[in-house]
Amino acid sequence: MRMRKKQWAEPFLIEQNQIVISEPQQYKGKWRTILPYQELHVEIGCGKGDYLVQMSEIQKEIGWIGIEKERNVAAVAVKKAVEAKRENTRFIALDADQFSEWFGEGELDVIHLNFSDPWPKSGYKKRRLSHRGFLTKYADCLVKAGRIIMKTDNSTLFEFSLCEFADCGWKLLDVSVDFRRKEHTEDAISEYERRFMDLGQPIYRAIWQKMSDV
Amino acid sequence: MRMRKKQWAEPFLIEQNQIVISEPQQYKGKWRTILPYQELHVEIGCGKGDYLVQMSEIQKEIGWIGIEKERNVAAVAVKKAVEAKRENTRFIALDADQFSEWFGEGELDVIHLNFSDPWPKSGYKKRRLSHRGFLTKYADCLVKAGRIIMKTDNSTLFEFSLCEFADCGWKLLDVSVDFRRKEHTEDAISEYERRFMDLGQPIYRAIWQKMSDV
Repeated sequence: MRMRKKQWAEPFLIEQNQIVISEPQQYKGKWRTILPYQELHVEIGCGKGDYLVQMSEIQKEIGWIGIEKERNVAAVAVKKAVEAKRENTRFIALDADQFSEWFGEGELDVIHLNFSDPWPKSGYKKRRLSHRGFLTKYADCLVKAGRIIMKTDNSTLFEFSLCEFADCGWKLLDVSVDFRRKEHTEDAISEYERRFMDLGQPIYRAIWQKMSDV
Repeated sequence: MRMRKKQWAEPFLIEQNQIVISEPQQYKGKWRTILPYQELHVEIGCGKGDYLVQMSEIQKEIGWIGIEKERNVAAVAVKKAVEAKRENTRFIALDADQFSEWFGEGELDVIHLNFSDPWPKSGYKKRRLSHRGFLTKYADCLVKAGRIIMKTDNSTLFEFSLCEFADCGWKLLDVSVDFRRKEHTEDAISEYERRFMDLGQPIYRAIWQKMSDV
């Protein structure tokens, strides 16, 4: 998602240092000290925060952490959360590459991947957020029966992900090749997702569970 | 697939007793005596035989067995194969319920499920050809790395199948949520499939491999 540079973004992110975590490695294994909720969910690539802020309202009993590397975009997400007074949210405006430095073993319950960059060229497969390189990192940070929930409009990314998760031994719990053909009031619709729905394009969605090593 | 009763169908099926196998249990473990090919493929629910007859032409080195319980419909498939002089085909005009009585352990290489009845009501799940009850039967008759290839226009059946195969420990080798968005000259298009393509509906397709017990 590209956006024009916002002059206010950088100072705002620094000013909001209670909600924007600039050194997430300091909270590794200790996220519940600032988000004392039963479950912790992370959205990698939260964009303008539409999904995360809505979900943090729908599921108040969950702590939500949004990761967005485009700081201009992250600032918009943070602004929404601040305006909506969503105390159960935090943001990391950095590249998710460092993911495993930030979260301790078994610290997270669910990871959300919404409309991630499909990196369509085969040579960039490793950058896809569902590439096995990432899956290993996610698995380390998830609880025993932790889940990953993915939504996308991109058929190639979805197909790649289904095979990649299967190859890596994750259990497919649920899959939909047209998620919005039924109403799902439990799941927020971002502006971005709405655009695809308005065009009549299917939304793909799957839920995988980490396999226990037993 | 419903069709008006054809007066010629029943006598024709009986007359074509070289290609229509009326007592398939007699060939259990011995199909290669009548189909001496390196690989044996079975299509369960071959309908009017469009796919099977085309594929038996594209892949002449394979023996093809079509199963179709609607004898009126099966007769059309047999007629096509006879007219096209496809010696590498045989047909079984019976209900696939008896599948495991007909094929020996590890006798088949690939099973094709094309546009199977989706049995949409939850109460009839067990009748879906990708229900775990059937998967066990298929596994017994397939070679060690045997595969099942499914195509369908029905999203609910496809989603059900993805979870069902995963649950039963089959390995997902390939999946497409819009198979015909790319050209696939290696795979025949039946009249039935063409109809969905002309309506712009996606064709779903997946390939699973039987997991070795090792």
